[in-house]
This record gives sequence, C-alpha cells and structure tokens, in this order.
Amino acid sequence: MTYRIDGLQYANWSEKVFRQMREGGVDAVHVTIAYHETFRETVLNFEAWNRWFDLHPDLITKGQSAKDIDRAKANDQTAIFFGFQNPSPIEDDIGLVEILHTLGARFMQLSYNNQSLLATGCYEAEDPGLTRMGRQVIREMNRVGLVVDMSHSADRSTIEAADASARPITITHANPHSWQPALRNKRDDVIRAVTENGGMMGFSLYPHHLKDKSLCTIEAFSEMIARTAEKFGAEHFGIGSDLCQDQPDSVVEWMRVGRWSKDIDYGEGSASAPGFPPMPEWFEDNRHFGNIEAGLKSQGFDADEVAGLMGGNWYRFFRDNFTPQ
Amino acid sequence: MTYRIDGLQYANWSEKVFRQMREGGVDAVHVTIAYHETFRETVLNFEAWNRWFDLHPDLITKGQSAKDIDRAKANDQTAIFFGFQNPSPIEDDIGLVEILHTLGARFMQLSYNNQSLLATGCYEAEDPGLTRMGRQVIREMNRVGLVVDMSHSADRSTIEAADASARPITITHANPHSWQPALRNKRDDVIRAVTENGGMMGFSLYPHHLKDKSLCTIEAFSEMIARTAEKFGAEHFGIGSDLCQDQPDSVVEWMRVGRWSKDIDYGEGSASAPGFPPMPEWFEDNRHFGNIEAGLKSQGFDADEVAGLMGGNWYRFFRDNFTPQ
Repeated sequence: MTYRIDGLQYANWSEKVFRQMREGGVDAVHVTIAYHETFRETVLNFEAWNRWFDLHPDLITKGQSAKDIDRAKANDQTAIFFGFQNPSPIEDDIGLVEILHTLGARFMQLSYNNQSLLATGCYEAEDPGLTRMGRQVIREMNRVGLVVDMSHSADRSTIEAADASARPITITHANPHSWQPALRNKRDDVIRAVTENGGMMGFSLYPHHLKDKSLCTIEAFSEMIARTAEKFGAEHFGIGSDLCQDQPDSVVEWMRVGRWSKDIDYGEGSASAPGFPPMPEWFEDNRHFGNIEAGLKSQGFDADEVAGLMGGNWYRFFRDNFTPQ
Repeated sequence: MTYRIDGLQYANWSEKVFRQMREGGVDAVHVTIAYHETFRETVLNFEAWNRWFDLHPDLITKGQSAKDIDRAKANDQTAIFFGFQNPSPIEDDIGLVEILHTLGARFMQLSYNNQSLLATGCYEAEDPGLTRMGRQVIREMNRVGLVVDMSHSADRSTIEAADASARPITITHANPHSWQPALRNKRDDVIRAVTENGGMMGFSLYPHHLKDKSLCTIEAFSEMIARTAEKFGAEHFGIGSDLCQDQPDSVVEWMRVGRWSKDIDYGEGSASAPGFPPMPEWFEDNRHFGNIEAGLKSQGFDADEVAGLMGGNWYRFFRDNFTPQ
C-alpha cells in the first residue's frame, strides 16, 4: 500500500479544495485549526469541521488514527487530522491536553514564533528552553498521544523537547536552514535531535522557506530533499506543504499578530510584501503532488524511498504516535 | 448475561464510593456532571473524571457504549456514563451537542426545574412546551446519540419531547405521581408518552420522591414498581437511584439555586429541612442494590423481569441510543 500524506495545510476550506485533494490523490492531511485561539474558540473550529464532515462525506472524513487513512482510502475520501500551531487551546490547563485529544487533536506546537507558557518561539531574541509547564505538558502529550510539533519554536527549546519527550516529536513544516537561511528553517543540530529520537520533518513549500522563494524550481527542491535524506536518513522525512490555499491576506496577519501586538508584525514578509507569497508554479494546490513525486524520482530515490517520502513515513509516524501509551 | 445498572447518581466521588460500587456489583452508572455549569465548567468536570479514571483503573472505566459495560464487567470495573441535568453545557450553541457527545456525554435533560432555552422545568407555573431551539436540539441529539432526559421537566414539555424525538427518550430518575404526589414525580400520561415511544423510566430512591420519604419501606417501593410495571410494561423500567452519597448540603443548594436566584429556593425541601434528606435504611449506598433485587422477587416478578429491572432494560436502552444515527 502506498500513501500520499501532507504534514500540514491551512487552506480556506471549501468543497473546491476538498475536490482538489481527491484529484491529487491525497489520502490524509494534517490541518491547522488554531493559531492563537482560546479553548472555546478552538472548539468552534472543531464544530465547523463537524459541519464539513456532515456536508461532504463523499470527500472527507475525520482522521484519528492511521487506520482511518486506510478507511478513507477504501472510500475514496481524504482523512483530515487536526493540529494547533500554538498551545493557546490548552490555555493554562494541562487537563485540556486529554480533552482536546478526545476531540481529535493529534499535533500541537509548543510555541508559535513567540515565547509561550511552554517553550520559546523562533523569533524571540533569547531562548531559555522548555518551561516548567512545558515539561509537564510534554509528559501529558506523550501519555495521551498528542504529538509535539516544534515547527515555529526556537532551537534550544526544540532540542530540549526532542530529548525530554518519551515519544518521537516532529517539525511538520520547515526546510534546512543551510539551504535557505530563514529564521523558520532548521539548523542541522535541530534536525539531528528530532530525527535521532525517531522524529520526522515535513519539507515545506511555503515560498519564504524555499531557495529563491516563489521562483524555486522543483529540481532545486528535490535536490535539497536528496541531500537532507543522505545526511539524516530518508525514513525521517515527508512533505508538510504549509499550503494556505485561497486565504485572504488578513489571515496571514492573524497568523503573525493574533492579539499579542498592537503593532503590525510582518513575520517572514515585509512592509512592501505583507501578504501571502505566490506558490511555485509546480505546486499551486493539492492537484500538484504528482510533480513532487516526479521530482523525487529524478533524484534517484528508489521506489520505496519515494513512497516513504510521499506518505509512507507519515503513515508510520501517525500509526505509532496518536494512541495513548 | 445479567446486569446491575443505575440510571442516575450524583455522589461526592471518592475511592470509597467506587469500591462500594464494586461491592454492590454495579456494572454501570449514569453519573451527573453538570447542573448549571457552562460549557467550560463542564469540561473541567470531564477533566476531573479523566483524572479519576487514571487513578483508579482497577475500579472504574469510562463508558461510551453498551459494549463498555461488558468490558467493565470482564475487568471487574464499573463503567461510568456521563450526563447533564440541565442543557447549560451547550449554552446557546447547537454545535456543542456533538462536541459534548464526543467528550462522552450520553444524557442531557432539556430543563432543570426552571424554564431553559429548550423546554420548561417542573417548577414553573406555565409550561408552553418545547421552544424553537428545543426542537432543533432534539433533532441534533437524535443524530449524534445524546439521549433526551426529562426528569426535571414539566408535563407538556415532556410529552412534546417524547413525540418530537425520533429516538426513545428517558426519565432517568422519578416515580409515579399517583404514588407520591411530588412535583418531580410523573403523571400517568407523561409516563405513557415516554414508554409508548420506546423510552425508559428509572425509579428514584431520593426520599422526596418516595411515599413516607425516608421512612418508605422496601415493600412499598417494590409494590409501586410492580403496579407501574403492570400498567406500562416492565421492560420500560429500571432503577435511577438519584443517590447523592457523601454530598455536603451546600451541594443541594447549588443544585436548586445555581446562579439563577439571589434568594434561597428550597426545592423539594423546606426552611426547616433544607439539606439532603436521609436515605431509606435499606438503600444507603451502592452496596444495597441486593435489597432492591430481593424486594422485586418478593413481588412475584419472574427472573427475566427482575434482571431487566435491575439493569437489562438500561443495557438495551444504552445499546440502542448512544451511537450516531
């Protein structure tokens, strides 16, 4: 069995996008449902998804474990797995970790660019590492099967999380800093800490994470994957496209500023380019996963490695890490 | 297979009470986790139960469907099913019906003594029947498998709910008004509407619902069950003890007054007897279910009828009504 799984998307969801997932043969997607939302606001987002599952049973289904991916595949659906890019949904209450896992959450970032109650974000000047609550919450996430995601966290916090966590952690969407020196891309010691503990990284297609940004070629992207796989082992990687399809620019502002600042913060953008950057022409939406698969083949990966990178590695990671210990 | 199932309790939970459930051979209990709580406060109560399940896996387990009762039985545990005595946990948001079902809620009363957003309570002077939102919420409860409980609702609202609901409804804890004319006990036309639609009533042991209150004899209680079963069919009944073991009197005040009044309301009590009334000496806690079983046998019920009344009828009701349609 081969799988096509995306480690992160945050589209402006619609029947159109769901249909494109089916056209692209996407079996499962990890979908962000909270950036800065409180618990109650996050529950409203679960409610909205319940409505979509009710309206589009022919296209999508709720994913909670890897076997839901096989069920989705058998029924020609895409399995939707939920995650948070910030720990704001648990507020200051460790009991909400299990509650949110029961509702369907499977990934939670310990911080998003800024310092959180748990860990430091990648835009802070100082990174003191995991907080007291951060260590408690990692243990609770391990217990219930909520995966630690450090995509937007700072280096020391990420390495400490990889070491403190009894189960593998992930960076769902980023690329190596050595290839494109964005603050959000990851240095080798960070990638090593995550992968040596059995963790996974998803390669990002968000243009700010790509060499030459929107003009990045599929050849350059595929070659970066080949070099990274050589260094750390192909089995530790997948795709985490960070596709934000059909979102208005007001959403990237919400992602960056939330309610934490009265000033504008451009994140990876700038005053002259504050919005979402255009996607590379070879990956505009879910119908283009075939281009990535072709790119990987042209790098000399064998069939098993290609299948692993396109979804098999995420499948195995989902299978091992979403259930209670 | 025979079962011992209680249709409602609200004890001050402790290891002591859980051990008494095991001593009494109680396979499953419907437990109240909200009277007047908001959604967020109700989630805190789910969190507290998650902690109890974690601390006492040798005694209790979370119940979500009838097969959890069989699993609990096999492991010498009591299965705990959750319910609300008021619709306050869904606030004004119909989407919370599915969210709370996902968290484990299996019963919800549409009102508690007073008018709610959904239906009228049994202490109101006027009962205009189901509200617009009430009819919508019943449909949603039917869809997801959250059972309508009308124990504290007024007559017209209850009869309308029994008719409007596409699935059987319940009165988890009450007795016939003809036997003990408490406001909370149910007139024959109400019991008929519920049972004719396949629903169930649990006989209450709360002293205010008993003839001679705390002094009621097991013979009088058993005879009342025999007369009620003759009239409506034994298969529609079980026990709903309303046991509030070890609760301080401040809790009965919370149940009655919540935050809706600045004046004290004595409910079924009085200024001279504001607290919890003493339980009958033959049913003081979970270890006494055998006394009820003996009482039923002495009324001439056959073995199947006794097994049904002690738990088999609730088992069948749980099996048919907790899963999505």
